[in-house]
Formats: sequence, structure tokens, C-alpha cells
Amino acid sequence: MGAHYMAPEQARSGRGAGRAARHKQRQTAGAIPHPCPPGQQGGAYQPLTQQEIITITDNAFRLLENLGMGEVPDYLEEAALALGGHLNSDGRLCFKRALVEEIIEGTPKEFTLHGRDPKHDLHVGGRRVYYGTAGAAVQTLDIETELYRASTVEDCYNFAKLGDKLENLAWFSRTCVGTDIEDIIEADINQAYALTSGTSKHIGTSFNVAESVAPCMELFDIVAGGPGKFAEKPFCKCHLTSILSPMRYGEDAVAIAREIVKYNMPINAIVAAQAGATAPAPLAGMLVQTTAEALAALMMINSFSRGHQVIFSNWPFVVDLRTGSFTGSGGEISVLNAGAAQIANHLGLVGGVATSMADAKAVDAQMGAEKTLSAAAAGLAGANMVYESAGMMASLLGVSFEAMTLDNEMLANIQRTIRGFEVNDDTLGYDAIVKHVMNEGHFLGGEQTMGAMLRDYYYPKLANRDNPTIWAESGAPDAWGTAKIKVKEILSAPREDYVSAEADAAIRERFNIYLSPEVM
Amino acid sequence: MGAHYMAPEQARSGRGAGRAARHKQRQTAGAIPHPCPPGQQGGAYQPLTQQEIITITDNAFRLLENLGMGEVPDYLEEAALALGGHLNSDGRLCFKRALVEEIIEGTPKEFTLHGRDPKHDLHVGGRRVYYGTAGAAVQTLDIETELYRASTVEDCYNFAKLGDKLENLAWFSRTCVGTDIEDIIEADINQAYALTSGTSKHIGTSFNVAESVAPCMELFDIVAGGPGKFAEKPFCKCHLTSILSPMRYGEDAVAIAREIVKYNMPINAIVAAQAGATAPAPLAGMLVQTTAEALAALMMINSFSRGHQVIFSNWPFVVDLRTGSFTGSGGEISVLNAGAAQIANHLGLVGGVATSMADAKAVDAQMGAEKTLSAAAAGLAGANMVYESAGMMASLLGVSFEAMTLDNEMLANIQRTIRGFEVNDDTLGYDAIVKHVMNEGHFLGGEQTMGAMLRDYYYPKLANRDNPTIWAESGAPDAWGTAKIKVKEILSAPREDYVSAEADAAIRERFNIYLSPEVM
Repeated sequence: MGAHYMAPEQARSGRGAGRAARHKQRQTAGAIPHPCPPGQQGGAYQPLTQQEIITITDNAFRLLENLGMGEVPDYLEEAALALGGHLNSDGRLCFKRALVEEIIEGTPKEFTLHGRDPKHDLHVGGRRVYYGTAGAAVQTLDIETELYRASTVEDCYNFAKLGDKLENLAWFSRTCVGTDIEDIIEADINQAYALTSGTSKHIGTSFNVAESVAPCMELFDIVAGGPGKFAEKPFCKCHLTSILSPMRYGEDAVAIAREIVKYNMPINAIVAAQAGATAPAPLAGMLVQTTAEALAALMMINSFSRGHQVIFSNWPFVVDLRTGSFTGSGGEISVLNAGAAQIANHLGLVGGVATSMADAKAVDAQMGAEKTLSAAAAGLAGANMVYESAGMMASLLGVSFEAMTLDNEMLANIQRTIRGFEVNDDTLGYDAIVKHVMNEGHFLGGEQTMGAMLRDYYYPKLANRDNPTIWAESGAPDAWGTAKIKVKEILSAPREDYVSAEADAAIRERFNIYLSPEVM
Repeated sequence: MGAHYMAPEQARSGRGAGRAARHKQRQTAGAIPHPCPPGQQGGAYQPLTQQEIITITDNAFRLLENLGMGEVPDYLEEAALALGGHLNSDGRLCFKRALVEEIIEGTPKEFTLHGRDPKHDLHVGGRRVYYGTAGAAVQTLDIETELYRASTVEDCYNFAKLGDKLENLAWFSRTCVGTDIEDIIEADINQAYALTSGTSKHIGTSFNVAESVAPCMELFDIVAGGPGKFAEKPFCKCHLTSILSPMRYGEDAVAIAREIVKYNMPINAIVAAQAGATAPAPLAGMLVQTTAEALAALMMINSFSRGHQVIFSNWPFVVDLRTGSFTGSGGEISVLNAGAAQIANHLGLVGGVATSMADAKAVDAQMGAEKTLSAAAAGLAGANMVYESAGMMASLLGVSFEAMTLDNEMLANIQRTIRGFEVNDDTLGYDAIVKHVMNEGHFLGGEQTMGAMLRDYYYPKLANRDNPTIWAESGAPDAWGTAKIKVKEILSAPREDYVSAEADAAIRERFNIYLSPEVM
């Protein structure tokens, strides 16, 4: 019967050694480091050749120099011309390549995104890959009904509380909007409160209007311990989509940028053009335009403040051209974001992309496949910051607690893939192979095996690896149900004291906080 | 409200253009080619550097030259020594590097795997990536009970019938074994019958014993139209795991190989060592041993027949070192198989790897994530033939109809990712960008967009892209349920006449065929 591989059976004969390994693992459990933590070195996947990257960026520079940007607020035009920009014959704001390159040169190539707990500090740049969240879902997948309902500010807090405990999310940016708050400034303030209360990781948020910025900064200062404290170690970045594709500025967002730069707050400068709708459908042309637009956002920010910490977030989005609707998944968006990561790396900027935006509504096989393809492609390509990477559903209209929890484990597996190989005399182990072949005839429980087990292998916590019989006997669980249990465990835990009682009282005194302490 | 991207809403304003596109698509529906068919050019992902590949293969050659292989049947030893092999001081069969390189040189670098319908011919080699099936699952996920039960010969037929209609499976090798047939030779004959009856694609099977080969070839000849017809255009490959890791031959499989080469049947020469159990746990050492073993299989086959068509199937498997059980998923096995693909490409051989071996039992989010990670990694790395890529569940113990159907669509998305970018004046479209920006202000319905829509975008058939409201109104379907409908549609269709009535009668006259015509 040796003619076909009997993989599972063959391995199962090694149960004794497995027990020994488990025993050894338990003994050292506290000391086992994560074999593939956030920050793995990406770049082994290069869908664009070096020459193709140059061709695309050449065309992007040319667009910015000749076609330029429309709908430029007066104060931006003034500042941009002072920076060295020019107007073309149509009155559009243009930037010569040399000027753009000078600004790129002056933009920080690496910097630290601070957590409130220093253990969460991220040093972004290079080819290091970090996955984190983002999103503005107006609907949340209800954990009880398994249907979508309007997102609330309580959801905003709960997602932060959940994300705080998911070890492969390197930061936590808001994933939904509290649709139960009508006033758009109060909505921003309450989002800031929900985030700072829920997690001590580096956070990220958006602002509906420029008028939201000052009160949110006041809140952050209270959290940080006093006026001006936030700016010393800004623990929050601003997500800002300042481009209305194709090739125009968005007035509200430009006004927000002008305000943000006063507070030393890093800006995640997002372009979210959609191939076939607000940008070209051919993939190469898509990247030409979005690269030009992302550079236009960089130029806008530098018009207000040179050398600001900017994340170059070129997020090439895709529509389903059959319906005109945004679609977050598929091969096109996966390779587009991988290509965008290459371009950011080529320019030497800290790059952001967006992945894992499942079109699926259910926490199902479609979701798992959709999220993994785009998240793996971007990470392997060396994207510095991969946004939207956990929880997002329904083509960004929805967000799910269970999905976020499962995504955390998916990201660990992807990070393990990105880590790749270490090739050296120890890992090649020629002599060890000879020894095991000539003596034991297997490698179970050997010294080399035990070392690798603890150093090189990621062991999932949620994935079911039981055989079918044990699985059936345990009630034939699926991933959705397994994740639900984990979510409830995390959300039912007591509130962390990430905001001191004094600061919390001061915030509630100063602002209209909708979140009741009882639900936190 | 321009401060955060409003991706979905923004796109939905383009419904009119979407309708126009749909209309146009319908008009030309018959003519739309698959934008990313099997055979895409991989290789953009290179987890091993060129130097690391050389180091690993150097060590593999060294193993084969000095440590060599144990448990060598006498007739193989005789043939291998005649080929130029030698025995080391322990009496193990060794091959000098120069000899191995000479055999590699003489092995076909590209060849055609014939379908019985020529439209299914595959020209394998280079960096072309084909996904297909394989597996020996003893359990099938029952479509009604959603639990596992023993696989039957009827399942073998039904999986072939299903796989025949799944356009991204480039070939169909058996995925399960009919456990309802006790006699192991009759089991092989009935497997051959089930495969040829179910599909006209290139197939693949295994043989329990060498005595099965002749009767199966007789069956294939009847199907092909007469004695010796099979060998003219062999439409079936033999899956053969001839290595008992570490570094030994499996006697039964060697006997089968000696028989197979008489029939011009390509051999998929599989190594399925398990890291940490039958091979080193460190990933680099794992590839050293499995590469040596895969070369040992090649040398064995060439000892019987020089220049035989061999697929160099180095399938590095992994055990969960906590339990000693085989695990088909995770970052380790994903990067290992990608690395194995690189090594096969480096050696210039037609390479095979194994992916998509979900540990999941349910058709759930775990399954989708697990399968996608390994399948994408191998394909992007340029694996020529990716086995096990559809349907396999429960760490290869099980197989599922619904999973196979969903996997087919997953593979299309991966193939779209592998296709990557085309960068030329047309796709860069500088002038088109300027025109659309200065005129329409969007790209919906434009000529360039319509062209790309039909040429560059894959539109999934099973993935749900509805918004949450429509999804809920349609009963909140999940992928498992959606796939079930598709499976039933395919399996309830009339039997294809892939085996003529005359041939069928002749086969049933000659052999004990368990499959009743009523269930086909």
C-alpha cells in the first residue's frame, strides 16, 4: 500500500513524541515568543518589474506636472504656489517633478507611530510589514442575529476593546462610525473617546470637519496627561482622504489637513480611487493616476507643513464593472495593492495599502478566501502598513467582531509566510539529517526539532485541526461559531484602565460622551 | 463629509453606466474569454534568494552523493548501478552529482499532458502555473448531513463529474478512494473507470500494487479505442510516492514504477515528507532532504527508463509539533511549497507542489483562509502543477464537493493575481486619463473602461457581492449553501458520453465494475 502517500496516518504514529513536545512546550509556555510578530520583512513578491515601476511613476510625475489638480481651495493654491507649484493654462495646480522629488526627499522615511503603551510602538518604514485596521462601516454584523444593523458608538468602543487583544493587529484605527450620534463634531469626539478607552495601541481616526480637530486634540491631551502632551508622542494618526478622484482635491479634507499639521499628528494620506469609475480600468493606468493623486496629497500637506509625517496611502480600489458597485476583493484589487506597495517602497515613502475588504456578508468560506488573497499579496510585496485588514465585510459597508477575530489569526499565518526562510548551517542541518537517518529513522522529538518547534512554527488558537471524528463529536463547530466564543470572552472582560478615572471624569465633564460606563 | 473615503456610496452613483456595461456584456457574452485561464506565468514571488536555492540544492546533491538511499530493492539496485550509481560504505545507494545532473538534463523540460478532449491538453513546464486535484481522502463530507462518512466509488465518479465542469481545474486526479471496494486491484480498476467516465480532462490516479497497472492500462486502452492506444496519447498520469522519508525507497511503489514506464505514462513522482516527523523541522533543512528525495525518485525512474516524463513533485508537508499530526495549512507549509516550486524551476524540471489542504472540516472561513494562503503562495512562486488544490479538507482525510466548487472560484482569483500587470502605452493610457479628467470627470462606460472590463476583470459566479440589505432579503446565504446548489446542479446533469456505450459494455464485460449505471 506504499503507492500513495499516507500522510496523515504516517504522522499520527508519532503521538508519543507529540506528547513529549507538548509537555516541553507547557514547561516553557510563558517564554515562547511569537514566531512571526508584526513587522516581518516583506518584498519577496514583486508583481511589477523595476522598469515597470519606473514607467508608472514617470507617467504619474508627468500627470502632476502637466494635468495637475482641480478644485483647489484658495488658501491651498496660495500655499502650494509658495512651495513652488504652478498653474497650467487651465488654471489647474501643477507640480514639477523636481519639486515633487524634493518634497519626497524631505518626507520622513521611517518614523515611530506611538502606542500609549510603549510596547505598542511601531517603527514604520523600510520593508517592514504591519497589519492594522481602518474602516468607516455604517453597519455591524450583529453577533446574536447574524444580520447587519446600524453601527453604534458602543460598537466603536467594543471593536477597539477587541482589537486591543488581537496580537497581530499592530495598531487600531476606527472600523465603524457611530450612526447613533447625529452631530458630526460630537461623533468625532465620541469616536476619539471610544478608541482611547478601548485600546492602548496606536490608534487612528478620521474627522468629519476641521472644527472637530481642536476638541479631539483637547480630549487626547486630557488622556495623555495635560495640554500639549499629545503632540510630544502622538498616539493617533489621522486618516484623511483629501483627493476626489480623478485629480481633484476635496475641500473639507484639505481644511482638516491644515488643522492637523498644527498638532504633530501623522497623516495617513489616502487615495481611494476606483478603477473603472473614478480612475482608469486598466491596472497600469490605475496606478499611474492613483500614484499621481497620492503625490498630490503629499504636496498638499507639505504646502502647509514641510517634512510632516505622512503615510503614502495609495489604495487602488476596484468596482465590479457589471454593476458599478465597489468590490473589495478579487485578483485585480489584490495585485493592484501589491503594486501600490512596490511603488511606495520605490519612492522610499512609508506606504499604506488596503486589503481584506471582503465582499462576503457571512463569516464564511468566501470571506476567508477573499481576505487572505489580498492581505497576503500586499504583505508579501512589502507594504508597510496594511489597512482595513481585520473585520471589514460587505465591501466596506459592514464590520464584524467574529471576522476581526478570525482575521487576526489569518494575519499570523500570513506573517509566518512573509517571514519565509532562514538559510544557514544550523537550519540546513546536513549533519543532523545524516544522524537522524542513520540512527532514529525519524526526527520526532529530536533536539533540532524541539528547537524549531518553539522558534519557527506558529500554532493557531482558533483553527480546528481535529480529525473528522473528534470534530463531529465536539458538535461539528465552524469558524464563525468558534470566533463568537472568543469575541464574547474578550468583550465580557472588565474594562482596562487605559483612561484614568480622573481623565475619564474630566472628559465627561468637558464633552458630551454618549458611551455609558455601564456598557464598557 | 469629504474627510473619510466613501468608497461604496461613491461607486454606486454609477449604476447607469453599470447597466450599459451589463447590456454590452450580455451582447457579447458568448465571446468573452476567461481573463485568467489556467497556465498563467508565475514567479513574481521568490521567497528563496538565488543563492539560497543554490545552497539548498548543493546540500541535497551532497546528501544523495554521500548518504544516499536505504531499503533499495535488488532489481532497483542493479538498475541504478548500471545507470552509474554507487553504494557507500553502509551499502546505501548513492548518486554522484554529475550523474544526477546528467539525468536532470535528459528529463523532458516541457511536455503535454493530454486530455481525452484535446481542448484539455496541458503543456506543462516553464513558469506556467496549473492548478488541479489530487488526494486519497477516505472520508467525504456528505452534502446532506454536513458530516464526514466513508468515501465510496460513487463519490470517486461524482468528484470527477464535478471537476470536469470546474474551469480552473486544469486536470482531474482522483481525490478520494472507494472504501466500499475491498480488493485493492479491483479498487484501482474501478477508480480508473470512475475517472474516465466522469471527465475528459487529463486525469491522474494511483495504484495500490504493481499488479493493478496492466488491467488499468487495458481499461484505458478500451476507452482510447484499442490496444496500445493509451500509450500514443497518455491521458492519465500516475501519482507515485516512492520515497519513505527519510531517505528510503518504498518497495511497492518502486515495483509500480517499473511497471508504469512500460506504458508511456507520465509519473508524478511525489515526496511527501513531513517536517519535524520524517524530515527536519527547520524549513531550510526540510527542503534539503525533500529535494534530495525527489531527485532520488527521479533517479529511480530513470534507472528503469531514461528520459521518462516525470513531474518533480516535492511536496514539503508539515506536522503540528504539538500533536504529531499532519497539518495541511499555515504559513510554514505555504512558504515551503513556494520554495519547492522555486527549486524545481531552478533545476529546470516540471515541478509539482501541494496546497489548499485545509485543516478545516466545515466549509467555513477557516477553510477559505487556509486554502487561499498556500494556493496563492505556490502559484505566485511559479509552481507548474499545483496538486490537492480543490476539495481537500480535514488535513487530507476528507474531501468536499462544496469545497471543490468554491475552490474553483478561489483559483480563478488567484490566477488573476498571478496574471498581474501588463504595462504598455495602451494600459498606461496617459492621454485617456487627461481626456476623462478634463471632460467627463469619471471613467464609467468609457471605451477604455469597456475594453478593460471584458479583457482584464474576472467576475465571480458564486461570490456574493450584494449589499447587506439585499443579502438579508435573499435569505442571508453563505458560501457553503451557495456551493451546495451549484454542486447539485452539476451532479444532477445527465452523464456525459466520455466513454462510448460500446467501450462501457466492453469494460463491464471484462472487469467487475461496481458503479451502477443508474447512479451515474
